[in-house]
Amino acid sequence: MNADTTPTPTDRVEASLARQGMMQQLGVHLIAATSGSCELGLPYSEKVSQQQGSFHGGAIGALADIAGGYAALTVAPIGAEVTTVEYKINFLSAKSDGALHAIGRVLKAGRRLIITSAEVFHVAPDGHRTLCAVMQQTIAPVDKQY
Amino acid sequence: MNADTTPTPTDRVEASLARQGMMQQLGVHLIAATSGSCELGLPYSEKVSQQQGSFHGGAIGALADIAGGYAALTVAPIGAEVTTVEYKINFLSAKSDGALHAIGRVLKAGRRLIITSAEVFHVAPDGHRTLCAVMQQTIAPVDKQY
Amino acid sequence: MNADTTPTPTDRVEASLARQGMMQQLGVHLIAATSGSCELGLPYSEKVSQQQGSFHGGAIGALADIAGGYAALTVAPIGAEVTTVEYKINFLSAKSDGALHAIGRVLKAGRRLIITSAEVFHVAPDGHRTLCAVMQQTIAPVDKQY
Amino acid sequence: MNADTTPTPTDRVEASLARQGMMQQLGVHLIAATSGSCELGLPYSEKVSQQQGSFHGGAIGALADIAGGYAALTVAPIGAEVTTVEYKINFLSAKSDGALHAIGRVLKAGRRLIITSAEVFHVAPDGHRTLCAVMQQTIAPVDKQY
Repeated sequence: MNADTTPTPTDRVEASLARQGMMQQLGVHLIAATSGSCELGLPYSEKVSQQQGSFHGGAIGALADIAGGYAALTVAPIGAEVTTVEYKINFLSAKSDGALHAIGRVLKAGRRLIITSAEVFHVAPDGHRTLCAVMQQTIAPVDKQY
Repeated sequence: MNADTTPTPTDRVEASLARQGMMQQLGVHLIAATSGSCELGLPYSEKVSQQQGSFHGGAIGALADIAGGYAALTVAPIGAEVTTVEYKINFLSAKSDGALHAIGRVLKAGRRLIITSAEVFHVAPDGHRTLCAVMQQTIAPVDKQY
Repeated sequence: MNADTTPTPTDRVEASLARQGMMQQLGVHLIAATSGSCELGLPYSEKVSQQQGSFHGGAIGALADIAGGYAALTVAPIGAEVTTVEYKINFLSAKSDGALHAIGRVLKAGRRLIITSAEVFHVAPDGHRTLCAVMQQTIAPVDKQY
Repeated sequence: MNADTTPTPTDRVEASLARQGMMQQLGVHLIAATSGSCELGLPYSEKVSQQQGSFHGGAIGALADIAGGYAALTVAPIGAEVTTVEYKINFLSAKSDGALHAIGRVLKAGRRLIITSAEVFHVAPDGHRTLCAVMQQTIAPVDKQY
């Protein structure tokens, strides 16, 4: 593959994200991807709320999971996809408006496993940012099936 | 409140689940709730899939999260709601059809914290069950705001 | 290698445990090992206590870590050792006497990763057992270097 | 209590660490404590090694656990102690010499729970630092019993 056709981190994340039915459904979009990091956004809506009106922990978890996973994808071998082995998330604050931004980062890229972390920030309508969740994750590169 | 009007575990989970925009969106339904446990179901659909066609880890995580959380709700003080402090999930197998069943169980119910676990099984169209994720979780009872 | 010389799960765990300086130091001993599970014991002493007199979380964590890791060793290829990729532990109760028994179990044995869980029980001087910690863990088989 | 007798973060950590039988046994020492953070050191020795000669995951886990716990102690109410609710640790590299430095930091200090993280670095005999483990943790303030 020559340089002209090597996909950029952004290309790789966009191609994969477009195929994620669930993320399309919830409204997740790519903000930025570089080698070793990925930032995703998710606006507040009823589709991602829980019983008390806040962002659902499941939505926060899913957003952190894919931010970390796509950070890993940017350093995985070209042509590979990634799968989540496990993750752990702590929730720091509950929010009911604005949007979430999740920033995934690669901590260590091994041949068989990629270790990542993610921070999820709430961005209020007035732009104020609050850390609302932190995640640690183990990712495995796998064969791409599409 | 007299005995006639004390809500059952099923009443409590149903009332809370009906208010979860995200879980309604994804198609999560209650299978059974008893004191200290809760089983939820989620059929496969494009709304819960990832880029390779399998159930999305975010959907599996969200399902496990609320199964554990609702197991905790069944032992929380009447009138309280619950919030997730943190959880950790390991993914064991990827599936692209049938449904997921998540069974949450209370391991320890303290006054300030409730520790739970959840197992997520895949149920194939022919009824075959496979363990596909395991979760450990910390839940805090909180004031109900509705 | 003929059947006579294939090491049993007990052989494998004992040979590895004898080499662990830290576990010898703390007083950890093997109770039982079968294919896919391992039970270890640790008597209470000042060597494993924390500032309030209870078993140290670090000792409980280390005991759970190696119970899960040795459960994985019993199903790893003959000649391999194992290394911990990550674990997560919840502490359920604090105890200041008797002994701890940790039971590790393999949940899924893959080629590249082995997923395990462990339960740590306190065994009081009168024999009463209390669940005091639960762990989930990811283990990788690695080349043996001894 | 007047300002002269209010214990500093260093005072609080030193008083608690001196009471930890296990940490004394392994050789853990305080490097620095400020409000919201704590750094601890642990030199390599046979007392903290595993079967392949590296630092034992149990020692790394215990060091990260108390670095995070003591970071929490520095922001807990004066007169309180802390207990670990849960932690999760990823191991990034194995080392067999030098020392470990663990830096715990408070991410959120709530009234009932304190959320922390810790990074564990290996410091080689030539001074080279390598990140070798990352941890996320939930801590609860408790009554001091000494």
